[in-house]
Amino acid sequence: MSDPKEKFLALVADDLAEIEKALKENLTPYLDLVYETASHLLFSGGKRFRPLLMVLSARLCGYSGDSDKLFSTAFEYIHAATLLHDDLVDGAEIRRGKPVAHAIWGGPTAVLVGDFLLARALTIGAKTGRLKVIEVLAEVTEYMAQGEIHQLMRKGQLTLTEAEYMDVIQRKTAVLIQGACRVGAIISDAPEAEESALADYGMHIGMAFQMADDLLDYTSDTRVLGKAVGADLKEGKLTLPVIYALENADSHDRATMENIIQNREFSQHDFEKLVDLIKTYGGMDYTRAKASAHIDKARKALDIFEPSTTRDILLYVADYALSRKT
Amino acid sequence: MSDPKEKFLALVADDLAEIEKALKENLTPYLDLVYETASHLLFSGGKRFRPLLMVLSARLCGYSGDSDKLFSTAFEYIHAATLLHDDLVDGAEIRRGKPVAHAIWGGPTAVLVGDFLLARALTIGAKTGRLKVIEVLAEVTEYMAQGEIHQLMRKGQLTLTEAEYMDVIQRKTAVLIQGACRVGAIISDAPEAEESALADYGMHIGMAFQMADDLLDYTSDTRVLGKAVGADLKEGKLTLPVIYALENADSHDRATMENIIQNREFSQHDFEKLVDLIKTYGGMDYTRAKASAHIDKARKALDIFEPSTTRDILLYVADYALSRKT
Repeated sequence: MSDPKEKFLALVADDLAEIEKALKENLTPYLDLVYETASHLLFSGGKRFRPLLMVLSARLCGYSGDSDKLFSTAFEYIHAATLLHDDLVDGAEIRRGKPVAHAIWGGPTAVLVGDFLLARALTIGAKTGRLKVIEVLAEVTEYMAQGEIHQLMRKGQLTLTEAEYMDVIQRKTAVLIQGACRVGAIISDAPEAEESALADYGMHIGMAFQMADDLLDYTSDTRVLGKAVGADLKEGKLTLPVIYALENADSHDRATMENIIQNREFSQHDFEKLVDLIKTYGGMDYTRAKASAHIDKARKALDIFEPSTTRDILLYVADYALSRKT
Repeated sequence: MSDPKEKFLALVADDLAEIEKALKENLTPYLDLVYETASHLLFSGGKRFRPLLMVLSARLCGYSGDSDKLFSTAFEYIHAATLLHDDLVDGAEIRRGKPVAHAIWGGPTAVLVGDFLLARALTIGAKTGRLKVIEVLAEVTEYMAQGEIHQLMRKGQLTLTEAEYMDVIQRKTAVLIQGACRVGAIISDAPEAEESALADYGMHIGMAFQMADDLLDYTSDTRVLGKAVGADLKEGKLTLPVIYALENADSHDRATMENIIQNREFSQHDFEKLVDLIKTYGGMDYTRAKASAHIDKARKALDIFEPSTTRDILLYVADYALSRKT
């Protein structure tokens, strides 16, 4: 048990099991097709990162009720709803090693099951008895939809700036994780300072998490990742490693990179050449450093809390966000 | 001003103008594309039936605040969100005489702008300060998504029963109208009996409204309707007039009707033959009678309220639901 990941997983094993149970129990559509489609995505090895963060945040704020697992499902349902819609929007084919829902049941079903999951998340949010929770969930959903549209609008465009990238990942990823952490504080009637600290923690974790994800698209392999490496580029999504490298490359190398990117059917050899150039111009290192700075801020946000096992777990999660391999 | 419709429109003109203003003021995405796409549908001559019913229901319950128009926008935004998604799901091409949003901006944008509008509706729902409103909005959205999926699952199938049809239209249409009426009562802190009466009123109006809509698909003409007559059948949607006629036709006529329906590219001549057979077997009359029974129940639900101009308007709306031409 000296491996930190093993130790961490042992500490949250009970929470994860209860979250899993709650996710099954609260997904109760009247149509089998809805259950089947939603389950295909929901029970396919998701890490339950968002509900777990809500549960841990609540615990850190001294939550004393017994509905934290129930409430936490709202964040996994919203996450699943956006994955269903985003995979459709992006024309993705594979997620977590399986064909995406729209490839099996068709786009229309994926759209409507996503709507159902969003609504179910709000039904659960209402069970918290706190309007502030609803405000968070609604705001998060607005942000996510717009982040995704922004990404879509700029798809395939080589002029995407670092500032725009940051705005997009904040909207499409970080605000939901931030929302989960904030809601943990809200359901615990935590003081404003704790809610705000957890909101900061969540925001920074979320930013780091997405950057790590974007790095994996260049550095992992398909088998480990559960989807094709280079998939982002093939979908026309420029992420920080390549944005930074394009900005810093000399005109010759920049042209080489642009040619590879603009040919969506690039070969494995071209992709490797691109990765080499990204590395040469520091795209990986720069992204890792940016993510690392967010991790530092996330960790620092927890300073206002007394040391505890729960705080240690959240600190571990911060480190994990950057070191993860899948 | 002796025409009842003219008289009715004069009585609600101020409300409609304020609803229109609120719909514009509260649609404030940060992306122009979202505004443009949402506006295309939202400001294309919708009747504002749902927000108006919420405002009138609140007035009937003695609502004394000044946010009724704001709150009422939630119902138009949800309605617009579902139209965006449903048009995509149904592969529709024309709505209100204009190309549908997904035909102009693409399916992905239609999906995401729909998500944005759903979220915006919930943000507005939260402004009521009442969790019960959120519960209604979330439940309505769950029902609508499932109603639409149910319809999709049975698309093109000649075995759709009257009971299933009733279940589908209740979910996809009536619950939202019911929700608007209920929320009018809730924001007025109306007694349970009034909330329940308005819920009944809304449910029955909604059922009648959808049946009238389904009749129009066989009886109107394209110019008046703003979309192609026979569009439901071309999308594989069996509605009550045809369900009833199929059930009651002799085997020869039934076979004729089935052949026309199963050939999605039916000619105008075939369509007219089908309409004749539906009429022969009483499909139109039966549907009108069913709708009329719902109208009676809707009117009756308002008996518990004292006579007033507002009650008269709601009674007029009940009659209009069946007599409308578009």
